[in-house]
Amino acid sequence: MNTGQYNSITDVEGVLVGHTTVCFGEGKLVPGKGPARTGVTAVLPHGGNLFKKKVPAACYVGNGFGKSVGLIQIDELGYIETPILLTNTLNVGLASDALVEYMITKNPEIGITTGTVNPVVLECNDGYLNDIQGRHVKKEHVFSAIENAKGGEIETGDIGAGKGMSCFEFKGGIGTSSRITPEGYTVGVLTLTNFGRRKDLMIKGIPVGEMLKDYPDGYSDDGSCIVIVATDAPLGPHSLKRLARRVPLGLARTGSYMSNGSGDIAVAFSTKNIIEHSPENPVYTIEVINQNSEAMSSLFKAVVEATEEAVIDSLYTAETVTGRDGNVRYALPHILS
Amino acid sequence: MNTGQYNSITDVEGVLVGHTTVCFGEGKLVPGKGPARTGVTAVLPHGGNLFKKKVPAACYVGNGFGKSVGLIQIDELGYIETPILLTNTLNVGLASDALVEYMITKNPEIGITTGTVNPVVLECNDGYLNDIQGRHVKKEHVFSAIENAKGGEIETGDIGAGKGMSCFEFKGGIGTSSRITPEGYTVGVLTLTNFGRRKDLMIKGIPVGEMLKDYPDGYSDDGSCIVIVATDAPLGPHSLKRLARRVPLGLARTGSYMSNGSGDIAVAFSTKNIIEHSPENPVYTIEVINQNSEAMSSLFKAVVEATEEAVIDSLYTAETVTGRDGNVRYALPHILS
Amino acid sequence: MNTGQYNSITDVEGVLVGHTTVCFGEGKLVPGKGPARTGVTAVLPHGGNLFKKKVPAACYVGNGFGKSVGLIQIDELGYIETPILLTNTLNVGLASDALVEYMITKNPEIGITTGTVNPVVLECNDGYLNDIQGRHVKKEHVFSAIENAKGGEIETGDIGAGKGMSCFEFKGGIGTSSRITPEGYTVGVLTLTNFGRRKDLMIKGIPVGEMLKDYPDGYSDDGSCIVIVATDAPLGPHSLKRLARRVPLGLARTGSYMSNGSGDIAVAFSTKNIIEHSPENPVYTIEVINQNSEAMSSLFKAVVEATEEAVIDSLYTAETVTGRDGNVRYALPHILS
Amino acid sequence: MNTGQYNSITDVEGVLVGHTTVCFGEGKLVPGKGPARTGVTAVLPHGGNLFKKKVPAACYVGNGFGKSVGLIQIDELGYIETPILLTNTLNVGLASDALVEYMITKNPEIGITTGTVNPVVLECNDGYLNDIQGRHVKKEHVFSAIENAKGGEIETGDIGAGKGMSCFEFKGGIGTSSRITPEGYTVGVLTLTNFGRRKDLMIKGIPVGEMLKDYPDGYSDDGSCIVIVATDAPLGPHSLKRLARRVPLGLARTGSYMSNGSGDIAVAFSTKNIIEHSPENPVYTIEVINQNSEAMSSLFKAVVEATEEAVIDSLYTAETVTGRDGNVRYALPHILS
Repeated sequence: MNTGQYNSITDVEGVLVGHTTVCFGEGKLVPGKGPARTGVTAVLPHGGNLFKKKVPAACYVGNGFGKSVGLIQIDELGYIETPILLTNTLNVGLASDALVEYMITKNPEIGITTGTVNPVVLECNDGYLNDIQGRHVKKEHVFSAIENAKGGEIETGDIGAGKGMSCFEFKGGIGTSSRITPEGYTVGVLTLTNFGRRKDLMIKGIPVGEMLKDYPDGYSDDGSCIVIVATDAPLGPHSLKRLARRVPLGLARTGSYMSNGSGDIAVAFSTKNIIEHSPENPVYTIEVINQNSEAMSSLFKAVVEATEEAVIDSLYTAETVTGRDGNVRYALPHILS
Repeated sequence: MNTGQYNSITDVEGVLVGHTTVCFGEGKLVPGKGPARTGVTAVLPHGGNLFKKKVPAACYVGNGFGKSVGLIQIDELGYIETPILLTNTLNVGLASDALVEYMITKNPEIGITTGTVNPVVLECNDGYLNDIQGRHVKKEHVFSAIENAKGGEIETGDIGAGKGMSCFEFKGGIGTSSRITPEGYTVGVLTLTNFGRRKDLMIKGIPVGEMLKDYPDGYSDDGSCIVIVATDAPLGPHSLKRLARRVPLGLARTGSYMSNGSGDIAVAFSTKNIIEHSPENPVYTIEVINQNSEAMSSLFKAVVEATEEAVIDSLYTAETVTGRDGNVRYALPHILS
Repeated sequence: MNTGQYNSITDVEGVLVGHTTVCFGEGKLVPGKGPARTGVTAVLPHGGNLFKKKVPAACYVGNGFGKSVGLIQIDELGYIETPILLTNTLNVGLASDALVEYMITKNPEIGITTGTVNPVVLECNDGYLNDIQGRHVKKEHVFSAIENAKGGEIETGDIGAGKGMSCFEFKGGIGTSSRITPEGYTVGVLTLTNFGRRKDLMIKGIPVGEMLKDYPDGYSDDGSCIVIVATDAPLGPHSLKRLARRVPLGLARTGSYMSNGSGDIAVAFSTKNIIEHSPENPVYTIEVINQNSEAMSSLFKAVVEATEEAVIDSLYTAETVTGRDGNVRYALPHILS
Repeated sequence: MNTGQYNSITDVEGVLVGHTTVCFGEGKLVPGKGPARTGVTAVLPHGGNLFKKKVPAACYVGNGFGKSVGLIQIDELGYIETPILLTNTLNVGLASDALVEYMITKNPEIGITTGTVNPVVLECNDGYLNDIQGRHVKKEHVFSAIENAKGGEIETGDIGAGKGMSCFEFKGGIGTSSRITPEGYTVGVLTLTNFGRRKDLMIKGIPVGEMLKDYPDGYSDDGSCIVIVATDAPLGPHSLKRLARRVPLGLARTGSYMSNGSGDIAVAFSTKNIIEHSPENPVYTIEVINQNSEAMSSLFKAVVEATEEAVIDSLYTAETVTGRDGNVRYALPHILS
C-alpha cells in the first residue's frame, strides 16, 4: 500500500499533533528534582471543539500492564471528546487534571449545566532516563502541546512524550506512518514506543537485533507501547475496535510479543461522522462501511503496516539521550536508518 | 443469608475504610471557589503495605459512562496494589496523583529500582450540590482518608466521597452491607450511590418511589454507582470477575436499569492469597474454590443481596444536604428508615 | 411504560415466532428412547431471506455456563443471518446442523460461490423432565418451527423449547412481553426460562417464593435463561450490546442472581438498518440514535421491564408437566396468575 | 528458545492428537455427494476421562468470523471437559453432536444425574476443495479421531481437518511446533491453517509470497486459522487467556493481518492443576505462577514463536491436493521446505 503525503498520522485530514518536551538537569537522580527527560504529546482528531464535536472511537488493550485513563468511557459510548495525551506513567494524574482544566476553559458549562468530561491520557514508563517520581509535566506543558498542535509534517523521535522512552534497548519515542487503502481511505498511526529486548528487534523481517547484540549498553527491561490509529473511513465504534485489535499484529512484526510488563494499548478514531454533544435531533443518518467487505480487510492491513513502520520510525528518528544517573539510550546505528 | 457483625464491608477481616469530607461555603456557585460538598473515601483491602502485598482483584463495568482509573491493569494482572479511592468525577486526576505520591512515600523505590504503581480511583458526579469544577479534594484529604481508615463500625451516608451524591433524587452517598454465606465466607460491599430516578426506587420490592412521587424537590438527572466488593473467600481474578458481574443485579433490585449516563462500576477483591511484589519463588501454591460448586452460587447471591442493601443503607443514613446555588437533596423521609 | 398490542416480542413489526413441541412417552427414563418433553422455538427477525438481508445484532453473556452457538460471529460482525433457534442443551448440535441445511435449501450458493453461514442456536437443560440424551429434536421439527413462525399473538408456556423447562422449581418455558418507549420505539422480549430456586421467586417485588416454600415438589437445581430482545429502534451492534447488558437486571427482579450453573445469555437485534449480504455499494447511510440521549435510557428501561415480565409470563402460562421417571413440575398456583 | 523433542504439541506431556481424513470422489462438485476433501482432528489434553478430569483453559477470539462452539463456557468456567475437535465449518453441528454422544458413551450419567457437557469444536472453511455442503464428517470419523489419538511424532499437513484447507493460496492444513522456556516449561502449538493472500506470506521474515507471486493458481479468498496452545506450566484461566492473546502475534509474523473473513481463534489449556468434576472438597490448593514474573514473558514469547512455526510447518508438510471442480491447491515449492 502507498503511504500518505507525509507518511504521518496527519495525513488523515484534520488530525493535529503537538509536543512539549521537558528536559533539564544532568547526572545523579534526585527524586523529585531531576534530571527530567520527559514530556507530553497531544493528538487532536480535529482542530475544533472536541467536547462539542466528538469523534467515533474505540480502544483495545493488548496487554493491560498500564495506567492509561479514559478507555472505559470510549468503550461504552464509542467516542472521544478531548485531545488525546501521551506522557509518562506517573504523570497521568496531573496530565489528566490539566486536560480537565483545559476542557473547562473552553467549555465552562462542564459539570455545571452539562455533564463532565472524559480525559484520555496514555502513558509509558520513561524511568530509565527520567526522574519519573518528579512528575515534571505540568499544566502549562499540557496546554502548550495542545495549542501548538499542527498538521502536515510532524517531529518524531525523542520529543514530547517520547523524550525519555526506550525501544528494543535503543532510543525510542514518537513514530508515525500512514497508508492509503485501495478504496481511498487514509489510515494514520502514531506510536509512543517504549518496549522490547534488543535481541528481538526485526526491521522489515531482518533480525537486526540479533546482529546488534554486542552493540553497547543494552539494558534489559520491560516496557510499553501506545498506538493511536486515525482514519477518515466512516467507521463507528464497533468497526474501529476491529481496527484497534490489529495493532498488536503490527507490533509483532518488529519483534514484540507483548511481554508481561508491557502496556500495549491502542486507541482508534475516525474523523468522519462527528457526534454533536447536543444534537438538535438524537436520531440522524451516518455513512458506514459494510462489515463484510474487502474495504474492511484493507483497513486492517493498513493498520498492521502503518503500526510496524511507525515503531521503526521512532527508532530511526530518535537521537541518543543521556538521562538520570548517566543512563544512556543510544540511537539506532545510523547505517540502519 | 445472615449479615456480618457490623453489616459492613469491614466484616471482611482486615478491610479498612476512611473518609475525608470537604465541605465549605454556601449559596451561589462560584466555579473554582465553592460551595464544596465533596470528599474522598478510601477502602484498604488490608492495613499493611499494599504495594508489597497485593490482593487478587477483578472489575466489571456495567455501564462505562465513567472516568474511573486503574481498571485496565486490575483486569490484566488480577490484583490491586494501592488503597481504592472514591471521589468526585473531576477530581480523579488530582486524587490519582496524590495516591501515587502516597505510594512513593511508602515505597521510595517505585519508578526507580522497581516498576511504577497503578492507582485505583473511582468516581461519581456530585455537581448538583458541589462546585465540581473546583476539584477541592487535595492531597492532604487523600492522605488523611487513607491514614484514618479503620475497621469495625464505619460511618456512611453524606460523608467522604458521599457528601455531595444523590440517589433516586434523594440524598445518597456511602452505604455498606455484608453477608455470610452458608459455607462461612464473608462478602462485604461498599457503595457510592449517585443514580436513579425517584419514581423507580424500590425498597425490599416495595415501589417506594412511586409512592413518593409528590415529595418535594426531585430533580431528575443521570448518575453513577460505584460498588466495592470484598471477600475472604479464596478467589483468584477469574472468579472475582464473576462476583463483580453480579453487582448490577443487586442494583436492579433497588430500581436501577443502568441508565445511559450512569457509570456503574464494580471492583471485587479477596483478602486471601496475598500476592508478593517480589516473591522469592515465582511459583507457589494457593487455595482456590472449584468454579463448579455451590459455594460459588452462594457468593453470587451474597453479592446481589449485599449490593442491594448497601444502596438502601446509603439512603437511610444520609442527611439532607444543601449545596451550590441552594440546591437541596432531601434525606429519604425517616418514616422509611 | 406501555406494553405493545400483544405484550409480545411480535409487537416489533416483522418479528415471527414458531414452535415445535416434541412430547411422547411416559414413565421410566430409557435414555435415547424417552419420555420426551422438549422442542424447538424459532424467532425470526423478519419473514424474508435472513441470509440475504441480515439484521444488526449483539449478544451478552451474563453467565456463560451454556452451550449456545453462533455468538462469536454476532459479536464480530454485528449481525444475525439465520432464524434464532431455542432448544435443549444436548440438541444444539443437531439443531445447528438442521439450521445449516435449512439455510442451504434457501440459499444453495452457501459454501460454494459465497461464504458459509452462522447458525444461532441457544439452549437450556430440560433434563429433569426430558430424555435429554435422546436429542429428540430432529431436522423436521426445526424446519417446522421456522416455517410455521407467525406474528401477532403467540403461544407461550410449556411449548416448543419450553416444553421441559423449569423456573423457580415451577413449570417454566417460553414467556414474552413488550414495551413502547416514550420516544415511540418498541422493545419486545422472548425468554426461555429454566432457572431459579423457589424460595427466591419475586413477582412485582412480592416475595412469592418465600410464601410458597411448602408448596409440593420443589426440586432444587441450577438452570439457565435465554433472552431474545427485539427492537425497531435504529441501533447498530455497539448500541444493541448495551441493551443486551441490561437483560440480567430484568432477571434480577424476578429473583435471579445468575447462579453458577446458569447460562444466562441475551441476544438483541434491531429490525431497522437491514444489512445486505452483497450490497451494490459497501458504503451506505443508516439512521442511528445518539448514544448520549434519553432515548437510550428509555430503551434500557424497556429491556429491564420486558425481561422481568417475560419471565413471569412463562410461569403464568405454563401448565403442569409430568416427565421422565414421573418427575413433575407444577404450574404456578393459578391464584397467582 | 529450544523446541521440544518432537517440535510438536505432543511435547507437552500427555497431549494426544488424532486424525480422520475423509477423502473420496473426483471432479465436478455435486453438492451433498462430493468430492470430499475434509476430515476431523482431535486434540486431547490427556488420555483419561476429560469429563471427570477437566483441564484449565481459556480462549481468545482474534477475529470472530467463525462458527466454533464451546468457547463461552470455557471463558466462564475456565476449563475444557472434552477432546477438542477441528473440522470444516458446516460440519460443526454434526461433529458437536458426535462429540456429545462420545462423551455420553463414556459418562452415561450426563444429563441424567449430573449436568450436561460442553463440546468444543473449531473450524475452518475448506469449501474451495471440498463439498462442504455435504457435511461428510460423520460420527464414526469423530470417534475414530479421538480413539486413535496418540502422542510423540504426529502427522501434519493435508490430513484430518487439514485435508481441504488452504494457506497463503498454497496447500495448508495441520501444523505443529513447540518451545521450552528458560524456566523449563513446555509450550506446544497445533494450528489448522486456512488463511492468507499469497503475496503476504513471510517465512522467517523473508517475503516469500512476494517472490512467488507468479507461481500458478493462486486463488484469492479469505479464510481462518485455529490455534490450540498447550502447556505444562501451572496456569489458571486468567493466565491462559494472556497466552491465547499472543496467538495473533505469531500469525502476524507469517503475513496475517486477520482479514475480515478470517476466524482467528485460539484455545489454550494447561495440563497441570486438573479439575475434578466432583471433588471431595470444593476447596483445594493449586500451584500458580506469579503474573508479574519473567516466567510469564517467556511463555508469551514461546506462544508467538511456536505459533509462527506451526503455521509454516503446515505449509511445509502439506502435499498438493486437487479437489471439487478440479480446484487445485499446490504444495509450497519444495525448494523452500
